Amino acid sequence: MANFGGHAIPGSFFLLLGFWLTVKHILQHYWRTSKPKGRQIMPPFFRKINYVEGGFLIFGAFVGIMVEQFVVDGPHAHLYDRENKSWVKLMNWQHGTMYLFFGISGIALVASTASKLVPVGVDRLALSLALFVEGFLFYYHVHSRPPLDAHIHSLLLVAVFFGSASTMLEVFIRDNIILELFRACLFILQGSWFYQIGFVLYPLSGPEWDLNLHSNIMFITMCFCWHFAVALLLVTCISSVVLFTVKRFSRRGQDIEIGMRNTASKSSSQKALLEESDEE
Amino acid sequence: MANFGGHAIPGSFFLLLGFWLTVKHILQHYWRTSKPKGRQIMPPFFRKINYVEGGFLIFGAFVGIMVEQFVVDGPHAHLYDRENKSWVKLMNWQHGTMYLFFGISGIALVASTASKLVPVGVDRLALSLALFVEGFLFYYHVHSRPPLDAHIHSLLLVAVFFGSASTMLEVFIRDNIILELFRACLFILQGSWFYQIGFVLYPLSGPEWDLNLHSNIMFITMCFCWHFAVALLLVTCISSVVLFTVKRFSRRGQDIEIGMRNTASKSSSQKALLEESDEE
Amino acid sequence: MANFGGHAIPGSFFLLLGFWLTVKHILQHYWRTSKPKGRQIMPPFFRKINYVEGGFLIFGAFVGIMVEQFVVDGPHAHLYDRENKSWVKLMNWQHGTMYLFFGISGIALVASTASKLVPVGVDRLALSLALFVEGFLFYYHVHSRPPLDAHIHSLLLVAVFFGSASTMLEVFIRDNIILELFRACLFILQGSWFYQIGFVLYPLSGPEWDLNLHSNIMFITMCFCWHFAVALLLVTCISSVVLFTVKRFSRRGQDIEIGMRNTASKSSSQKALLEESDEE
Amino acid sequence: MANFGGHAIPGSFFLLLGFWLTVKHILQHYWRTSKPKGRQIMPPFFRKINYVEGGFLIFGAFVGIMVEQFVVDGPHAHLYDRENKSWVKLMNWQHGTMYLFFGISGIALVASTASKLVPVGVDRLALSLALFVEGFLFYYHVHSRPPLDAHIHSLLLVAVFFGSASTMLEVFIRDNIILELFRACLFILQGSWFYQIGFVLYPLSGPEWDLNLHSNIMFITMCFCWHFAVALLLVTCISSVVLFTVKRFSRRGQDIEIGMRNTASKSSSQKALLEESDEE
Repeated sequence: MANFGGHAIPGSFFLLLGFWLTVKHILQHYWRTSKPKGRQIMPPFFRKINYVEGGFLIFGAFVGIMVEQFVVDGPHAHLYDRENKSWVKLMNWQHGTMYLFFGISGIALVASTASKLVPVGVDRLALSLALFVEGFLFYYHVHSRPPLDAHIHSLLLVAVFFGSASTMLEVFIRDNIILELFRACLFILQGSWFYQIGFVLYPLSGPEWDLNLHSNIMFITMCFCWHFAVALLLVTCISSVVLFTVKRFSRRGQDIEIGMRNTASKSSSQKALLEESDEE
Repeated sequence: MANFGGHAIPGSFFLLLGFWLTVKHILQHYWRTSKPKGRQIMPPFFRKINYVEGGFLIFGAFVGIMVEQFVVDGPHAHLYDRENKSWVKLMNWQHGTMYLFFGISGIALVASTASKLVPVGVDRLALSLALFVEGFLFYYHVHSRPPLDAHIHSLLLVAVFFGSASTMLEVFIRDNIILELFRACLFILQGSWFYQIGFVLYPLSGPEWDLNLHSNIMFITMCFCWHFAVALLLVTCISSVVLFTVKRFSRRGQDIEIGMRNTASKSSSQKALLEESDEE
Repeated sequence: MANFGGHAIPGSFFLLLGFWLTVKHILQHYWRTSKPKGRQIMPPFFRKINYVEGGFLIFGAFVGIMVEQFVVDGPHAHLYDRENKSWVKLMNWQHGTMYLFFGISGIALVASTASKLVPVGVDRLALSLALFVEGFLFYYHVHSRPPLDAHIHSLLLVAVFFGSASTMLEVFIRDNIILELFRACLFILQGSWFYQIGFVLYPLSGPEWDLNLHSNIMFITMCFCWHFAVALLLVTCISSVVLFTVKRFSRRGQDIEIGMRNTASKSSSQKALLEESDEE
Repeated sequence: MANFGGHAIPGSFFLLLGFWLTVKHILQHYWRTSKPKGRQIMPPFFRKINYVEGGFLIFGAFVGIMVEQFVVDGPHAHLYDRENKSWVKLMNWQHGTMYLFFGISGIALVASTASKLVPVGVDRLALSLALFVEGFLFYYHVHSRPPLDAHIHSLLLVAVFFGSASTMLEVFIRDNIILELFRACLFILQGSWFYQIGFVLYPLSGPEWDLNLHSNIMFITMCFCWHFAVALLLVTCISSVVLFTVKRFSRRGQDIEIGMRNTASKSSSQKALLEESDEE
């Protein structure tokens, strides 16, 4: 959808996802670092969070596909126009394909949360593939556009492909808070960059941008770095706020539990030693 | 072989290989997750499966090379024509070279199954190299063709090189079900994409495709993603069916064995603790 | 700042950083390999070193940004000139953006040294991103310059991107002395190459370089390898000198401590065996 | 040196190195898999082998540099000709630079064998850098040559850069026989490809090759894969021969030792269990 709204909607989607992922992974990180050693099972709270996230992805993908198909000037589920011998609204079909893979990643998240049979890491693989497909389609999307238009979209690809690569790494390096927050940061960057694309290509007010001016390209390149710096700042702030809030609340509730844990660990020194070797 | 059949044959080969690998790796995964702790040796059933797969690869490669050489308009083992001072049917020789490396990977699979002297992972390295050589030759293959022809072949390269990279990873990360199924999925994608190339370049019915139309290229790019989505769906479905079938059958036969294992593990608690540290 | 000084300042900065990192990591390496097994906490000396390094980065970045902004022909915090409808001194803004990210990496280093809440590896991630942003901006920087100018800057990118990749690896592979010294070596290479760029583009004496001559490009490519060889040599020499100096001094001071350690380790053989398994 | 000999000399050098590495790493692999558990120190035999290899690299590099400098039409240690204002024989200087880095890798190998202070893996890093520098210089070497000449050299780069990447991996993944033999295989490939380049560009007999014919490029691409297949075959054959020879000889000599080892391991079951956890 070639207008400001068509960039603001995915932008808001990715911004929201980025904020959500930051909060979720900081909570998981806190739980991992503070949990008693024996408990390995994910508490029901995180399962619910994953269901909500998966549902959000599936619902968003479904709505996205429907809107792209049945918007006024959409293809209305027609792919090929036999009369004119031409494809019908391929842009909308391409956007729909991108949404489809995010929907698949939502399904993978729900499935891997619900069942132990689904191997650990499938959700990350599916998300990585969704980002890869998004980047892959965008890569051929920008063909034969004016320089600034092509450049501003190719900068989006930097965020998308780095996100895909870092999410792929998470398939093998599980529960690494740095990778998880980096992913959240790249989603926020992607979201805010969608807004930036909207502002540049379809300015709400003021003059049009000259799409062929080299200095505009130079500014946009730098602007991308600023968005990245802001995204890093946002992730840092949100993480700190969530972490301190959780710490204050949990200190009151878990005093008794911690007390018990300490006693237990002291009473069985031999077992503790073996458990230490267990953890390496 | 520049006709529909010349693309359908490798397509069928890769589709078959992809389905086979899905079933094989799900069975291995089930065996790995359900086996008693002490038993590390691969059961004879999986050895036989590997022999069959290796034999299939060697046989397929041999037949492929022979067909490419001795087909009616083939080179008949002549490489250089001294009279005309030109190479003889280099396309057929190139396809033969691709088959050769798949044959080598078959030999590596048989050898690494048969002998403990062959280092673990050689079969994956050989398969990765076979895919790399295939992609490497295809990469220079598509030189100076019409845009759609070049594009549809370069999309094949995406599947081939990702397959090569992910198989190379398996040399170091062994027994990772996600990587194994991903490889199977990429083989299915490659197989179905060979069919797609056949349908586009040598349509069985209907009008010829315009090889220079940009919208055709855009459609084909998206179509590749759809093939990928279908390949993911197929792998998921086959995996689920195989897993549930195996679970039902094994539940009947192994009740006694599981009973024995439980008793054994309870009787020696000290040993169990040490074994736990053993497994980290 | 397009003059010799504008290349000598960052060059000196990176050279200094490279030497500093060599000394710091060799000291840390010595401490890691010679410390008694029980002590895992970083001694206060290294914390102080990290604070100094972080402060140096933050201070350097702040000064760099201020100089780029408020130098005589700088943008003076003006980004867009509404009258001429043009961007103001984008080069200076771009350099400022590069400094900003090195400042962020300094903050990350200070934060991760000061607080245990900051996950291990954030400092390396931030440094890797700073190098990536530097390379990223330089990559679009060299657009439409004469061949030798573009080439000499693109060689800088080799050092920058390899540095970024190797620093990113350090997020996952901690305390690997090879990676740490390789990073220091690449910083020294980067610093000396900045000087080389300055000498070539703004020669202090002698004739101007012909920026279009192919043999100049060939020489510069080879010259880059020589700089690299010298950087390797420097890192080796500094490491050796530091290591031997530290060894001599510590031998006197720690004799008693080592004696105690040996006694302690012999007295508890059972614990030692368990600890050995602990360390794997 | 633009003649057949100038390609045959490095070709022989790399072929020899490849064969040497195959034998060395198979011997090391045999020692690793058959050694009693307690012995971690490399036997003096392998130290001597490493000294010989390092010395060979240093000597070869020294001779190479001298030959390139003081050959009849060489630069004779003159870099810049002030009279003609031109660089003197940059090709020879570039080749000398390549040799220099192989010499450095030889020094690193000797140093890391001789002293425990040199961190493990430095020899591999230096070899990886030597290969990278070789590829890096070749990459800019092939500029503005006829198509076949450029192509045949760029194929060399495939072997060189894959060798560099796989050797870099060995810095982190030590004692992996697959990586080690793959490296040896790539050296053999590189060596034989140098001969191929010599045969194509400076044919000893027969007609000159048409450097612009597309079918020649296609053949050479395929020919590279054949060289690779032969290199794989050679490594496999040499490995098998060495392994069986060593097995036969060692079976006679070590019978007593193995007997002692078996007895020792049975007598201390508690220790063995702990050692098992030690090895994970």
